[in-house]
Amino acid sequence: MAGDPQRTVRKRSRAGESRRAQLLELALTLFSKEGYQQTSLQDIATELGITRPLFYYYFGSKEELLHALIGHLGDTMLDQARPILRSQQPALVRLQKTFDMHIELLLDNTDAFRVYFAERDRMRSDGASDISGEAEYISLITDAVAAGQAGEGIRPGPPRVLALLALGLLNSTLRWYSPEGRLTKEELAPIASAMALRSLIIEDED
Amino acid sequence: MAGDPQRTVRKRSRAGESRRAQLLELALTLFSKEGYQQTSLQDIATELGITRPLFYYYFGSKEELLHALIGHLGDTMLDQARPILRSQQPALVRLQKTFDMHIELLLDNTDAFRVYFAERDRMRSDGASDISGEAEYISLITDAVAAGQAGEGIRPGPPRVLALLALGLLNSTLRWYSPEGRLTKEELAPIASAMALRSLIIEDED
Repeated sequence: MAGDPQRTVRKRSRAGESRRAQLLELALTLFSKEGYQQTSLQDIATELGITRPLFYYYFGSKEELLHALIGHLGDTMLDQARPILRSQQPALVRLQKTFDMHIELLLDNTDAFRVYFAERDRMRSDGASDISGEAEYISLITDAVAAGQAGEGIRPGPPRVLALLALGLLNSTLRWYSPEGRLTKEELAPIASAMALRSLIIEDED
Repeated sequence: MAGDPQRTVRKRSRAGESRRAQLLELALTLFSKEGYQQTSLQDIATELGITRPLFYYYFGSKEELLHALIGHLGDTMLDQARPILRSQQPALVRLQKTFDMHIELLLDNTDAFRVYFAERDRMRSDGASDISGEAEYISLITDAVAAGQAGEGIRPGPPRVLALLALGLLNSTLRWYSPEGRLTKEELAPIASAMALRSLIIEDED
């Protein structure tokens, strides 16, 4: 889940990179628990066991640290979904595969997505335009929903609203799912994905 | 959406109560936009146009203010759902009526529920046990899901997980719905409620 290290730092050694990756993981856990806004740069440095100058060496700023942690998530979703959603398969198949991918990625990276959903609106209003992978992602899903409304049994209604509600069911797992709990990812993922797809389909009339 | 004024303040005049209700509404808008944690008591006093002593007079503390704003929401849901979920109707009918009520209440009080979902976990860990209406609410819905698995076509799987996912679809509207937007509450509510119910039902085999 580490971001692209090229973004902020150019001349670090291989050992420095691996140290930075460790620190990124610690920072992610911290933000996921305490919240990004509520955590000061000094809190982060203390928790990571580094000095403030070393923090600046590794991350540049608190904002750049956040970006390294979650800035790529929308794009990752988009990159994985694009070949699925642009394929020639029926819309319902494309949506099912996308939902499978979506819930898998979410449950594999719960900390990162929790921080992402808590902070993306603020990042967006701060002009961080490169978290916009999500907008294209939702728009591709909206297209598939609209396609499925023409003959594949997807319910009528604004396709973007339908897409947002089905994705909302998947994303809501972040509110309560814990990888340490009794329910495994392998149990939850297929239920959530099937329910999201099913929510889109109208009652059979036959 | 004002909380029970009896909770924190005992000897205020009628005019004082109505002034307090106005201030509660302003505070709710502020928390919904800026976040409760990020807003200092001084920020609140400034935004409300009152002095700090007057703030203490009206609300006691920042925590009591929060409680007056959102402490009752879980109980309100529960009070409305109890007669529906305990009735003798088929489980699917009880769930549909509950989802209709749930989405209606949510969309009528988006600011309050946004603050509620952002803060309830912290309130709970602070020992504010009287926001626990939500736990009983979810448990009643779980019972209805389990009942619907016995012969009414609700999909197999842990009933509590199914309940949380269906409710998650409804609650996800808070992430993007705006009462000022193009989509009206009257358009969104029936779509969301129908999708939540549909998500629970297995594919017909006949």
